[in-house]
Amino acid sequence: MNETLSLLMNHRSIRKYTDRMVTEEQLEMIIAAGQMASSSSSVQAYSVIAVTDPEQKRALSALAGNQAYIVECPVFLVWCADLYRLQKVSEAHLGDQPSYVDSTENLIVATVDAALAAQNAAVAAESMGLGIVYIGGVRNQIAEFAEQLKLPELVYPVFGMCVGYPDQDPGIRPRLPLEGVLHHGTYDATKTVEEVKTYDNTYAEYMRARSGGKSTAAWSQFMAKRLSEPVRLHMKEYLQDKGFMKR
Amino acid sequence: MNETLSLLMNHRSIRKYTDRMVTEEQLEMIIAAGQMASSSSSVQAYSVIAVTDPEQKRALSALAGNQAYIVECPVFLVWCADLYRLQKVSEAHLGDQPSYVDSTENLIVATVDAALAAQNAAVAAESMGLGIVYIGGVRNQIAEFAEQLKLPELVYPVFGMCVGYPDQDPGIRPRLPLEGVLHHGTYDATKTVEEVKTYDNTYAEYMRARSGGKSTAAWSQFMAKRLSEPVRLHMKEYLQDKGFMKR
Repeated sequence: MNETLSLLMNHRSIRKYTDRMVTEEQLEMIIAAGQMASSSSSVQAYSVIAVTDPEQKRALSALAGNQAYIVECPVFLVWCADLYRLQKVSEAHLGDQPSYVDSTENLIVATVDAALAAQNAAVAAESMGLGIVYIGGVRNQIAEFAEQLKLPELVYPVFGMCVGYPDQDPGIRPRLPLEGVLHHGTYDATKTVEEVKTYDNTYAEYMRARSGGKSTAAWSQFMAKRLSEPVRLHMKEYLQDKGFMKR
Repeated sequence: MNETLSLLMNHRSIRKYTDRMVTEEQLEMIIAAGQMASSSSSVQAYSVIAVTDPEQKRALSALAGNQAYIVECPVFLVWCADLYRLQKVSEAHLGDQPSYVDSTENLIVATVDAALAAQNAAVAAESMGLGIVYIGGVRNQIAEFAEQLKLPELVYPVFGMCVGYPDQDPGIRPRLPLEGVLHHGTYDATKTVEEVKTYDNTYAEYMRARSGGKSTAAWSQFMAKRLSEPVRLHMKEYLQDKGFMKR
């Protein structure tokens, strides 16, 4: 296994950081690596906001589920889907032509672009000995969160990412069996249930160990709980208010 | 610069492949690396279909913009956002409780999960000497494309990915200047125009060289053209038909 594969296979999310700083040079390397990810027709429809000020991190953390690691990490990155830049630079050329910037297609393009760049950045950071964790909580109170960052229309925060030197060494969280996610030729809907049965036990064991016996739920129980909770139901209206997916 | 950073910084999309096969073992390594990417609350809301049969690749290519490299690459991967598995495994636990699987939030979660896994897989493939190119064309005739793969409700193809041994060595496509995508503290809407001006020239030069003088358009001209075209306006209706983003 080469060095890169070994790095990828050893990923774990880091939720506790030392107070060692991440330098501006390191940050730039991480973002530059993010930029090298593929982008649909070179649109590069994403932006990233780096937050290092402790007061600002505290304010953002309060809006994103109050996770201590957002405050404690030296750099908090907010990855945004960004169609604002495209719309702005196009205006001079568009003249009277309509812009389809508000299509659902373009929401998908921008969201995917942000995610591909972010994952490259995550790998880059880990290759430098740093740790990261993604923060979906930025969508909890997305309007207030976006306002703090002065995001214009056609920009939305997809997720955050804490970056810093790890101060913990958590175990690797088990994934679904490979056959659970990989299909050959066509989608095989029958295997979902079989593959998941084994995984339910693996996951329950992992959670039991991690929680010191407090949690013993199987993966599918967690999933059912998640689907039954009315999580972030404001997203549709918020995105449309911001100019996304109007058609 | 470490080996991984150097790999990331040297990415270029590969659109011409030798006929050397990708082994099942390599494929499994690539997907396993994809699985190690972060996933929102471990939902792992994605699936990937590996297509190797030449006839099937030809049929899929015809629906995805007729790109020859889809037929020529030894393995064509279709990365799907997959909420079907979550819904299925949850049903036994949900009982009478409602499922919010159809929220726009969950569309975002599944789309991001697919993209993070795919980008890890792309990096893994490249670390093994393989080349890749993302194929957004799978969304051109998405209903017919999904039908060929027998995708059930709550699964949609986000993009394809050709994988194989490179038979070309294209130059690296220039990205926006770092300061164009990286903001500090808050989003700086004023710099969009400045940063793009420089980039327009860089991009025009690159395209001129790549096209042998046929294309001389600046980046912002390409972007304006793209926004003015009614690309994949069926996405909203298609996704809602398949059970996504109903609220």
